[in-house]
Amino acid sequence: MSNGINARDVAKLAGVSQSSVSRVFFGGASVSEKTRKKVLAAAEELGYVPNEFARSLITNKTRLIGLVMKGVHNPFYPQVLQEFTTHFNELGYTILFVHTNHDEIQKEDIEMLLHYHVAGVIITDATLSLKVIEEFKNNKIPVVLFNRKVEEPNFFSVGTNNLEASRQIAKFLIEKGCKDMAYISGARNTSTSIEREKGFSEMLAENKVPYKIYHSDYSYDGGFKTAKEIIQAGDIPSAFFVANDIMALGVLDALREQSIDVPAKTKVIGFDNIEMAAWPIYNLTTWEQPIAQMAKETVSYIISEIEEYTDRIGNIEINGELIERKTT
Amino acid sequence: MSNGINARDVAKLAGVSQSSVSRVFFGGASVSEKTRKKVLAAAEELGYVPNEFARSLITNKTRLIGLVMKGVHNPFYPQVLQEFTTHFNELGYTILFVHTNHDEIQKEDIEMLLHYHVAGVIITDATLSLKVIEEFKNNKIPVVLFNRKVEEPNFFSVGTNNLEASRQIAKFLIEKGCKDMAYISGARNTSTSIEREKGFSEMLAENKVPYKIYHSDYSYDGGFKTAKEIIQAGDIPSAFFVANDIMALGVLDALREQSIDVPAKTKVIGFDNIEMAAWPIYNLTTWEQPIAQMAKETVSYIISEIEEYTDRIGNIEINGELIERKTT
Repeated sequence: MSNGINARDVAKLAGVSQSSVSRVFFGGASVSEKTRKKVLAAAEELGYVPNEFARSLITNKTRLIGLVMKGVHNPFYPQVLQEFTTHFNELGYTILFVHTNHDEIQKEDIEMLLHYHVAGVIITDATLSLKVIEEFKNNKIPVVLFNRKVEEPNFFSVGTNNLEASRQIAKFLIEKGCKDMAYISGARNTSTSIEREKGFSEMLAENKVPYKIYHSDYSYDGGFKTAKEIIQAGDIPSAFFVANDIMALGVLDALREQSIDVPAKTKVIGFDNIEMAAWPIYNLTTWEQPIAQMAKETVSYIISEIEEYTDRIGNIEINGELIERKTT
Repeated sequence: MSNGINARDVAKLAGVSQSSVSRVFFGGASVSEKTRKKVLAAAEELGYVPNEFARSLITNKTRLIGLVMKGVHNPFYPQVLQEFTTHFNELGYTILFVHTNHDEIQKEDIEMLLHYHVAGVIITDATLSLKVIEEFKNNKIPVVLFNRKVEEPNFFSVGTNNLEASRQIAKFLIEKGCKDMAYISGARNTSTSIEREKGFSEMLAENKVPYKIYHSDYSYDGGFKTAKEIIQAGDIPSAFFVANDIMALGVLDALREQSIDVPAKTKVIGFDNIEMAAWPIYNLTTWEQPIAQMAKETVSYIISEIEEYTDRIGNIEINGELIERKTT
């Protein structure tokens, strides 16, 4: 257990250099048996236990994983946070939590992660520029984009198959007999919202089903407000595909407020399968994101790149599944 | 910007010891002008920038704050996480996130926090033994219990005034004409649940209003299940005080499932004022916890103890307020 004693104190008492103390505890260049004994005796006398920082100074590696997250107001992300914390904890790693209020990860955040010599970085709902990825690459720090991807394929990303999922959702609604539909998007610059829109609208176009696109922001309030505007415009479609669950709950509440019967008058389907989707008051039909498997793939990539950095790139997409409840 | 080059590389190129490199960048014992020049030349050639770990090895301090949290499934805690991340970020500190699945903080968690030489620790919904507090005290690491307190006053805690709040809640319901009441508790070993029960039941006893206590667990499912059992037993009171909001939402959904009219047939009041309490489908009357102020007090204590460790103890309680909505 640590107690405020550091390598300098041990070196002083043992009458050796601080780097000798480091070598005894962390390997590296050899150290004489005499020095080793002096250091161990001093360490024992002082109750010194080497700390993570000392180790990192020698190995240039830590057991910290940077997790960059934006939307803790969407219950999907606290679930993701818990998943990563549990997995990495079991492997002896700790989460350095970076909350960003910006769409794009900021220069300060990157510098902080580099200063702490994180062993790996996971970026969830924030986006990042290619320049930023280069900074991590130069430092041989593996990065995973989780539930996001960018166009140029020079990084590693893990997500669900949004294109295929949204095609399936469209197919499901067509088979339910829906004649016209609405897609309510999330933040427009996110890959998830873009892909869900693409798969959904392509399938509808192939089947000659008319649809409208409404832009919103992945929040409950956004979903509520957008649905309210659609209702007020008298433009209620026979089905809504809402780009995430938390917005879909807002849509359901806006419809309920106007006593519009779901699923009789219109149907609603979300995306994520957050816990609240199953609550009896909502009973939301949705597409389940396989968070546990997505997290597992992410952890496995990061650990293998920590062991041997190969700068492997790629995009892993894990299929989710439709969870049919009572809003369709 | 860091680039994988460490103090050892600089020392090697400069032909000096690693501790000389440290002294050049972080002070400590003096170093000759000749050595200093050699080190700076080597550092420049290699593009070496000293990192946080190197600094911490010398100063024995980091800019990491350990945040221990259990219930990320309760939206109250992601809000708390965001509050702390934002505040500490502004001050140049980063959050080391520790998620525990246990009621009590575990030995491994403590050791990890000590190994990383955190500058301070915030413990939210987990409890901790007095022995654990001693470990932090021995290392002069300030600790705050946030939204929790323990009996023996040898630590610092920040919360809301639960006793007074629950007395006010009882008074409010009595004035609404409620003739018998139920208290649905959270996890039984938590100070919040115990104090809310105490204040509520004392005020009811003083006013000779009968009440029953039901034990639950601070989760949506717990609230739903407990309310369902009460309904099935035909024991519906004229008002429920539910120890937190997320349980209160479960109670409302169980009542709605049985078409029991709120607030006509029975009233429900929660605690926290999480975002969802304001959603139109719930419109939950609740007691708002002043999270922002509570976080501010916590940050201010930790920063002052980092600057000068005085092991100040105490309990700061900030008053919240009743938010009356439609369930009463």
